[in-house]
Amino acid sequence: MIHHREIAKIMGALLVLIALLMLPAVGFSWYYDENAWPLLISMGISGLVGSILFLSFSKQDQNIRKREGYLIVALSWIFMSLFGMLPYILSHQIPSFEDAIFETVSGLTTTGATILTDIEVMPKGILFWRSMTQWIGGLGIIVLTVAIFPLLGIGGIELFVAESPGPTSDKVHPRISETAKRLWYVYVGLTLSATLLYWVGGMTFFDAINHGLTTMATGGFSTKNASMAYYDSAFIQYVAIFFMFLAGTNFTIIYFGLMGKVRRVLRSDEFKAYTIAVLALAIILFYPIAAGGNDYELAFRKSLFQVVSLVTTTGYVTDDYTQYGQGATFIFFMLLFLGGSAGSTAGGIKFVRHLTFIKNSWLEFKRLIHPRAVVPLVINGDRVTGRIITHIMNFLLIYLLTFVLGSLALSLMGYDLATSLGAVATSLGNVGPAIGQVGPVDNFAFFSPIAKIFLSFIMLLGRLELFTLLILFTPFFWRTN
Amino acid sequence: MIHHREIAKIMGALLVLIALLMLPAVGFSWYYDENAWPLLISMGISGLVGSILFLSFSKQDQNIRKREGYLIVALSWIFMSLFGMLPYILSHQIPSFEDAIFETVSGLTTTGATILTDIEVMPKGILFWRSMTQWIGGLGIIVLTVAIFPLLGIGGIELFVAESPGPTSDKVHPRISETAKRLWYVYVGLTLSATLLYWVGGMTFFDAINHGLTTMATGGFSTKNASMAYYDSAFIQYVAIFFMFLAGTNFTIIYFGLMGKVRRVLRSDEFKAYTIAVLALAIILFYPIAAGGNDYELAFRKSLFQVVSLVTTTGYVTDDYTQYGQGATFIFFMLLFLGGSAGSTAGGIKFVRHLTFIKNSWLEFKRLIHPRAVVPLVINGDRVTGRIITHIMNFLLIYLLTFVLGSLALSLMGYDLATSLGAVATSLGNVGPAIGQVGPVDNFAFFSPIAKIFLSFIMLLGRLELFTLLILFTPFFWRTN
Repeated sequence: MIHHREIAKIMGALLVLIALLMLPAVGFSWYYDENAWPLLISMGISGLVGSILFLSFSKQDQNIRKREGYLIVALSWIFMSLFGMLPYILSHQIPSFEDAIFETVSGLTTTGATILTDIEVMPKGILFWRSMTQWIGGLGIIVLTVAIFPLLGIGGIELFVAESPGPTSDKVHPRISETAKRLWYVYVGLTLSATLLYWVGGMTFFDAINHGLTTMATGGFSTKNASMAYYDSAFIQYVAIFFMFLAGTNFTIIYFGLMGKVRRVLRSDEFKAYTIAVLALAIILFYPIAAGGNDYELAFRKSLFQVVSLVTTTGYVTDDYTQYGQGATFIFFMLLFLGGSAGSTAGGIKFVRHLTFIKNSWLEFKRLIHPRAVVPLVINGDRVTGRIITHIMNFLLIYLLTFVLGSLALSLMGYDLATSLGAVATSLGNVGPAIGQVGPVDNFAFFSPIAKIFLSFIMLLGRLELFTLLILFTPFFWRTN
Repeated sequence: MIHHREIAKIMGALLVLIALLMLPAVGFSWYYDENAWPLLISMGISGLVGSILFLSFSKQDQNIRKREGYLIVALSWIFMSLFGMLPYILSHQIPSFEDAIFETVSGLTTTGATILTDIEVMPKGILFWRSMTQWIGGLGIIVLTVAIFPLLGIGGIELFVAESPGPTSDKVHPRISETAKRLWYVYVGLTLSATLLYWVGGMTFFDAINHGLTTMATGGFSTKNASMAYYDSAFIQYVAIFFMFLAGTNFTIIYFGLMGKVRRVLRSDEFKAYTIAVLALAIILFYPIAAGGNDYELAFRKSLFQVVSLVTTTGYVTDDYTQYGQGATFIFFMLLFLGGSAGSTAGGIKFVRHLTFIKNSWLEFKRLIHPRAVVPLVINGDRVTGRIITHIMNFLLIYLLTFVLGSLALSLMGYDLATSLGAVATSLGNVGPAIGQVGPVDNFAFFSPIAKIFLSFIMLLGRLELFTLLILFTPFFWRTN
């Protein structure tokens, strides 16, 4: 009952697009006099397989139903990963399958965890493709959020993405193309702005565009081994802070901000919570960092940078945040569970879900005292239905259960408690750095092949809002009726 | 608007009861030729303060409303703790306030964590009072579960305690006294049976009655430094396993089992889940323990003992379960979050809540595929309302949030990750042993005074199902209307 032909056609189109998006990397490869053949062959393979898939299946003009929707989402990321890793393998820069798939999935899910131990020796063409995988992932998540998740009803946050969340999801559908266009403008515009400012701040053009791509994708891949700590320019670091913050903001909010519609920006409870949380956390973590011997401006910049980077799930670092004691490390670990705003490129839980849980908890207490009072849960000025509240709380619990079971799996492979918890939390939240042996100055190279494949799966689970992937493992998905 | 006089009168009655329950300890003190004065003076103080409170306030015959209900529950445990610690302080066996309050709260909440480094040197009278605090705590939780929580609507599990959970809570009320009587018979009867079998198995009468009291309370205080590992008798350990398992079972189910109503026992989804989980976990953990060099019967007994002890939140140990590798330790840590059955003396989350979450998750996936289908959530053959589902999922999230924030607090005090997570998990779940520096062969003596007070508060939070205590910190509780 599943329309395989439609799915194959879409996969074909996607692979052709992937091939086209490899072109800029080829350009950089030529410019830097590198061997461009690995990239060209990867382009050729993706383009050829894509064209064959696309042309073999005639258009049947059938409506995509829910089941196809889930399969398309899951298969898209799997196809992109399998073909996206070709440049790594063919260039012998990342020769093993598990390393190449980990690095590609980490890119496409905008996680930013890496198995590379020396980034700076990589050819520029390959490095650019690596950054591009994150930008593609960011683009992909915008498409999902705007066009696919509302159709599937995934994660319960689709109502908070568009400008006026109505009581029913039907209201959103007619606006899809309009919303998509806006978010696309914001994404491209901010990527170019970030690139320009990084360049002005003193980065080479190559580094500027790479960091521009991975900042706006909340990805966190850097072209430097030391990540953003390489740049001791306060200007560059504040530019990074500013654009990471924007990348973790609902793009619709940014659009309205740019249009001068301040009232619509201020009406967003999620934006308010996100802004206040970032500032409050930066102030709290300022103290241990300043006590660690940094001057006040530097301490505040380090605190703000790390907080914004982890909260937005970007994952750049300018400091080893695990050196400020047990308590500060614990707080940084907790930041892995925040996850930016709905309608941004950030991964993880997202503030609107936390907000729903906190507001509902408050109401639960109120209901205990006043059992007969009807107190609606209101977010962004609109009432949230019980159905959505239940769905969101269930999402939170499944997220935490996935985190716990994932950590259990890693500890069964022999990794210590902090490393297991850290690696799974940062993979599931699409962040990048964590605690234990995967702290801010470490990498994921030491994991066993099976652990790398497993963590790639966890990154995909997090990026696709759990349900989209997990539903494929339920019996009623495959049952024909 | 809060009826202070009624509350004071009840506290008075409670203190008189506490004084009476100190009498058996005095008896043991005399029998063993110890100085009984500390216990007698404690009795005198509790009895005097109690009598004054009780007699000072004339009965006004007013209905106890919800607000008074919450205050009575919270104050009962606080009063019992403050007067229950007098024997420790007056006997100079536990001279400092923070140690005495920790040990008393650990007893009354049936947690079983101890600050004692050498249990066996304590006078018998004091040791008996220590075991008695757990039995009183178990009794208290039965009263709460049957009579108070249904009135307050706390935790969402009251409907699963009585024999026939109906769609509305009103159905339960007329049965309160009947249910209470049954559970009381079960509690006393099983305590006597456990004592008898421990005695038959070779314990001294004193050790047998102490372990009988702390087994049925799912408390876990032992009169031996090595806990149940002191007894290498397989008979005694299987007796402990059997009675711990019963103590973690819904007492109503046990009652029906004893009445021969097998069908009612089998209708309980929670009992089935609890039994299957215990057996499955014992089989899974058998492998690492057998690989650790134990013979098969011993390995299985060790596995089953530790699993039953942690799942039922008792906390006896016969083995250092942290020596079987990262994975096995992680599983044992996860057991701290299971928490026996509703309607038992076990603390923690309870299986019926896990069951509600798992069943609802399943339905969420089903609803994604069939959005218009109405699929009710059924437990024990009865439909669970959306209101209760939301409440239970909110409970789970607040439980986990409390765990995380509690662990954060401990790590801010400088304790390492495993110790912070372990100490808070085991305190909140009222278990006893944990991981890190509070593993199965450790104790809580090394914590700072502030950490001990904090963990006592966490134990109370867990025992009183969070909401009962937390609601006192909300503004609408104190607002007159």
